[in-house]
Amino acid sequence: MGKRAKAAAAVLAHTPCDVKNAALEAIANALEAYADSILAENALDLADGAAKGLSSAMLDRLSLANRIPGIAADVRNVATLPDPVGVTFDATTMPNGLQVSKRRTPLGVVGVIYESRPNVTVDVIALCLKSGNAMILRGGSETFRSNMALVSVIKDALAPYSDDIPPDTIQYIEDTDRRYVLDLLKLHQYVDLIIPRGGNALHTFCRENSMIPVITGGIGICHLYVDETALLDDALKIVHNAKVQRPSVCNALEVLLVHEKIAADFIPRVVEHLGASGVTFRAEPRALACANGDARVLPAAEGDFDTEWLALILSLKVVTGLDDAMTHIRTHSTAHSDGILTQNMTNAARFVESIDSAAVYVNASTRFTDGAQLGLGAEIAVSTQKLHVRGPMALEALTTYKWVIIGEGHVRP
Amino acid sequence: MGKRAKAAAAVLAHTPCDVKNAALEAIANALEAYADSILAENALDLADGAAKGLSSAMLDRLSLANRIPGIAADVRNVATLPDPVGVTFDATTMPNGLQVSKRRTPLGVVGVIYESRPNVTVDVIALCLKSGNAMILRGGSETFRSNMALVSVIKDALAPYSDDIPPDTIQYIEDTDRRYVLDLLKLHQYVDLIIPRGGNALHTFCRENSMIPVITGGIGICHLYVDETALLDDALKIVHNAKVQRPSVCNALEVLLVHEKIAADFIPRVVEHLGASGVTFRAEPRALACANGDARVLPAAEGDFDTEWLALILSLKVVTGLDDAMTHIRTHSTAHSDGILTQNMTNAARFVESIDSAAVYVNASTRFTDGAQLGLGAEIAVSTQKLHVRGPMALEALTTYKWVIIGEGHVRP
Repeated sequence: MGKRAKAAAAVLAHTPCDVKNAALEAIANALEAYADSILAENALDLADGAAKGLSSAMLDRLSLANRIPGIAADVRNVATLPDPVGVTFDATTMPNGLQVSKRRTPLGVVGVIYESRPNVTVDVIALCLKSGNAMILRGGSETFRSNMALVSVIKDALAPYSDDIPPDTIQYIEDTDRRYVLDLLKLHQYVDLIIPRGGNALHTFCRENSMIPVITGGIGICHLYVDETALLDDALKIVHNAKVQRPSVCNALEVLLVHEKIAADFIPRVVEHLGASGVTFRAEPRALACANGDARVLPAAEGDFDTEWLALILSLKVVTGLDDAMTHIRTHSTAHSDGILTQNMTNAARFVESIDSAAVYVNASTRFTDGAQLGLGAEIAVSTQKLHVRGPMALEALTTYKWVIIGEGHVRP
Repeated sequence: MGKRAKAAAAVLAHTPCDVKNAALEAIANALEAYADSILAENALDLADGAAKGLSSAMLDRLSLANRIPGIAADVRNVATLPDPVGVTFDATTMPNGLQVSKRRTPLGVVGVIYESRPNVTVDVIALCLKSGNAMILRGGSETFRSNMALVSVIKDALAPYSDDIPPDTIQYIEDTDRRYVLDLLKLHQYVDLIIPRGGNALHTFCRENSMIPVITGGIGICHLYVDETALLDDALKIVHNAKVQRPSVCNALEVLLVHEKIAADFIPRVVEHLGASGVTFRAEPRALACANGDARVLPAAEGDFDTEWLALILSLKVVTGLDDAMTHIRTHSTAHSDGILTQNMTNAARFVESIDSAAVYVNASTRFTDGAQLGLGAEIAVSTQKLHVRGPMALEALTTYKWVIIGEGHVRP
């Protein structure tokens, strides 16, 4: 599979943009045209999942019902994004007359290992195709039939473009034995990048076993610190949005830190306002004391401030001020998205300067850490590691560059 | 060491540029002031190396004799380079009013594992310090005393700056047991990047064992293809420069491919001109036939076209044209630096488009793949992998960025 992917990548690196866009349009059309057969396979996965006792939240993540129009629209959106491949940048002429520039090229072959949501299959294919990369995919066993249906429909849609988009552009590891994941992680001669999309265990497994660079991320213990001078009405709205709007995603709020001078006022308002949306709380003693015995606020247990809840649960802590808040964040954050709510611009600047997370916020919800929200148009993953790409990862992060050096008989003195 | 490095990195991220530059100047001064004691330790390493029977080329790489002024000048040069840390880029205001930008930050902690040349110790320290990174260094046992002397002089020079540059900024693994390298490669909680500098075995060892991202590179089986229309006088000059000027480095030429229509004319000229500088040749049959039985041209053995000679040896091959040349390069290149010599601009463009190496050349010597030559001002390594940085790696490649997102009560709809 590695060799075949690399051969496909050599062709894809030169596929014209208009062919890639036409192919994406064909994929979107095919997903809509064959929605019924895809949904039939998805229903079998869902039935298996229900029989295995998966939670309704898990089953919701597996389900494609009513989602295919949105997925097709996302594919069409990728077609509208600028093609990063072939772009020349940092062009300069050196004092000796040598013309030096960088030219953007695809990475080559991208391996993606993912869990649950089958729409990831389509997202990954659209972004890798547009950026000229071949891919080796490995989805979760719980969505195997959905993924096979999606891949089959997409490969059929690409068949008319096979001169420019070889069939091996998309390869799916059909055997669900985990040892094939291990094999994939060793293919460093053929695969240029591994993107895991799933829980902490998957990321750790990839980091420990991969001989190929891995983009880790997607784990968000996100913090908001409400400073003494925060506008509390705004803060309440932001905290609610960050926690409640979509609690199952990595940019959702997990820990709220509140300045001690406003805690007695603000914490009861948080409990009331978020509690009305079904949120419960885990509070350290000082925050617990501010909650006036509200039954929705439980004492925090050990580890609660290191837990990515991904649910309607919020950890609460009172801090003595900015430094205390920053120390807490440095100790417990996964460096995904952390923010300060304040009207004190000195404190805001110190927070931005000192907190080393992929996204640092002032007076906004952490939910904006997202490729589309931050202007990238799409997103294949959110990186919380520091190399190559940090935060939302889209088309440009699926490319590299080569130096192009043009002389007229130049030799080095 | 990892914990201490991380703590130092938290301080260094905010060290003002003028303090870093003053510290670099102090390092340069101290290297000059204590040159004698450094050279005394270096002499002991050299005596050990001679007793162990190291080649004169190896001993030359170990020697610091007459090199300290140049090393000090390189440190001063790093002080003159712009500080990448804190630079804001890609700033934009989203349609909803959210202010989004990226801010450049140090990577954090860089682990560098290197062999032989002790000047690497100083290069790495200067570049990591300027880019605000703490470092854990592990040099080769054959230069242990030289490295200890250099580190000791540098740490003493930094002592007056310890408020802004903590002593743990530079840590050197003093135990020469290889298992400490393995331990370093597992410190992913503390170390953000591993840079190996050495031979293929070291790079492979790092890739296979590291849980930290590794920049592999520095292995150059570099090719030049002399096309039918090349200006042969220029070509001769370029080939000579690429092979002879400094044969022991990774951007030196190792393989010359010659178009069949000019081979009978050009190959004897190459043998004569480079042979006069002591070069010998390994030729496949058609190239051998062009050499008219010159004793400096031996038949190529199996593997000669996959060998990084790092010596005055050049592999020679006749090809049928551009496609044959590109196929050979794709099969045998380490994707470091490969070039075409031609007056046919269509062929030049096809070569640049198709060859996926870190540096692709037209009508110039491969010896320009170097941070200083390409305008980066310095170089910590040459990457031949595709993530994060490709080709020469200098200050900016030792940084990452964070997204800074400023709102006024923004929530996600």
